[in-house]
Amino acid sequence: MRDLRASGIKVEQQALWILDQRKLPREEIWRLCVSAEEMVEAIQSLQVRGAPLIGVAAGLMVASLCVQGAEKDQVIAGIKSLASARPTAVNLAYCMKRMSALSEQTNWREAMINEAQALFDEDVELCNRMAGHGELLVQPGDRLLTHCNAGSLATVGVGTAIGVITEAWRQSKNIKVWVSETRPLLQGGRLTAWEMEQAGIPYDIICDNMAASLMAQNKVDKIFVGSDRIASNGDFANKIGTYSLAVLAHYHQVPFYVVAPHTTLDLECKTGDDIPIEQRDALEVKGVNGGFGELQWSPEQATAYNPAFDVTPAELVSGWVLDSGVYSLQEVQAGALCRL
Amino acid sequence: MRDLRASGIKVEQQALWILDQRKLPREEIWRLCVSAEEMVEAIQSLQVRGAPLIGVAAGLMVASLCVQGAEKDQVIAGIKSLASARPTAVNLAYCMKRMSALSEQTNWREAMINEAQALFDEDVELCNRMAGHGELLVQPGDRLLTHCNAGSLATVGVGTAIGVITEAWRQSKNIKVWVSETRPLLQGGRLTAWEMEQAGIPYDIICDNMAASLMAQNKVDKIFVGSDRIASNGDFANKIGTYSLAVLAHYHQVPFYVVAPHTTLDLECKTGDDIPIEQRDALEVKGVNGGFGELQWSPEQATAYNPAFDVTPAELVSGWVLDSGVYSLQEVQAGALCRL
Repeated sequence: MRDLRASGIKVEQQALWILDQRKLPREEIWRLCVSAEEMVEAIQSLQVRGAPLIGVAAGLMVASLCVQGAEKDQVIAGIKSLASARPTAVNLAYCMKRMSALSEQTNWREAMINEAQALFDEDVELCNRMAGHGELLVQPGDRLLTHCNAGSLATVGVGTAIGVITEAWRQSKNIKVWVSETRPLLQGGRLTAWEMEQAGIPYDIICDNMAASLMAQNKVDKIFVGSDRIASNGDFANKIGTYSLAVLAHYHQVPFYVVAPHTTLDLECKTGDDIPIEQRDALEVKGVNGGFGELQWSPEQATAYNPAFDVTPAELVSGWVLDSGVYSLQEVQAGALCRL
Repeated sequence: MRDLRASGIKVEQQALWILDQRKLPREEIWRLCVSAEEMVEAIQSLQVRGAPLIGVAAGLMVASLCVQGAEKDQVIAGIKSLASARPTAVNLAYCMKRMSALSEQTNWREAMINEAQALFDEDVELCNRMAGHGELLVQPGDRLLTHCNAGSLATVGVGTAIGVITEAWRQSKNIKVWVSETRPLLQGGRLTAWEMEQAGIPYDIICDNMAASLMAQNKVDKIFVGSDRIASNGDFANKIGTYSLAVLAHYHQVPFYVVAPHTTLDLECKTGDDIPIEQRDALEVKGVNGGFGELQWSPEQATAYNPAFDVTPAELVSGWVLDSGVYSLQEVQAGALCRL
């Protein structure tokens, strides 16, 4: 396997390393990942997160098993456990399907290594294409709001929603970014803020409940978010709070775009109702826990509701920014996604 | 001054004590308050919070100065600094106006002590009346959502929005409560959760960004919130995130009620545009800080936007639950609040 390098994952001299995103932005800790079990745990605990990244990371993990000379049974078992590490993002299933399709080939180890490298290269390219298409939607002076982290830390390229934002900035469009912190795991306040710092793009962090007030004051020009799975009718799942922003954007007539590669499409899901939503531990809502420390502020016995994602119906979306172009609601309703 | 006792403040043998709400629910720490400066600091740091409570607390502080034999100049200076401790809640200005109106009386010390006691007694009674009116809006089995803390900790009685909820529970209406955590200062996840525990009412804490998703699933029947200031046209300011809930409730056709005593009305504000909105320190958004501990997770240099309140326009309100009854949008638009 050749050396590969992205913001959140790297291959160096055949060894697979992941950046522990729970520790960001306080510390940058790279962890060696040698078994499928370790990668499953890294994905479930959100050391590795972001729909495109977890797909490619799982692919590289399979390739690493091949490099290590694992037997076919072990590799197939690894693919199976990786595919079910988290339920909502379809990129993981997509990448694992492409790997397992090669298991009957004579030189299956080499084929899987090549496929994982191809998944990596393709994701870089898909990100570039989305950034190019989406950037055209941004006007100089725009104040853009993004939720969670759909940047270089969520992919192996420039990101999805944040790829659009950084490309607009690179094109000298004088933008400003509102970063919603994204409770409970604070991917906005930690990771997107960190990416904005790295890129030198002006930004302000807000609590998730402040977005509506900003929109009422005409301080948000457009919203760009990523996605974990897009159904064939255009409904999509993304980090909890995305649907809330979509409704608020609709009410305030703020354009609302979802940015995702075709690997996020799941044509087997006819509508958002078919997308499984991961429920996570109540402790995440009762406090905070990450590389920055751990605190609980709610009563010990308190119960909490903690869906990791919500579903935004197509009707609330102004445009789907895919690697193949920007699609309107009319096009999506006419079946454009089914023909990709 | 006679002994007085509420959830968040008490007078015992002429001494004024406040419960440090930053420490809840982990610790119950009562602090003696002997000077206006101490009370101003307690209000600004949210040891004492909630629009009705800070008004009554400031009144009792003035009474305490009188008990201590302070000179009139000192008392008037104290009233002035207390009145400007926080800008948005009008109850503070209302209570200070009632106290300062007595300064020309011969027996002004005694008059102020009596007035502060009256403010306390009145708030208890106003809460009971609001609870009685609002409770009639609740159906058995309702799933009610409330934001921030508008309970016994925010008043000296049973609370405003939470007074309605606890009264419905007392009337054996089998309710369930969604408690939005209320970033950045977590009054929901800490204080409202604590009050629900005390009352034994079933509840789940949610992150603020989860409310929309619950409404889309038809899991919220009604929303009750408090207020810091109501303009004469019915627009009102309340904790940041309230406006967001109002828009989401409107979109999902969930009834949305504001509960407040007449002391929260400010007829000098014609609309919500006239209500001053307090901006607070960016550090509150970059992490958490309270009696439970302190953590920062955002990049050191990060900037943040942190309005403590937002304004909800009257058009989004299903009803105003005041101590004198429940008013509809039609009544409010016909000037009902101006005749109170």
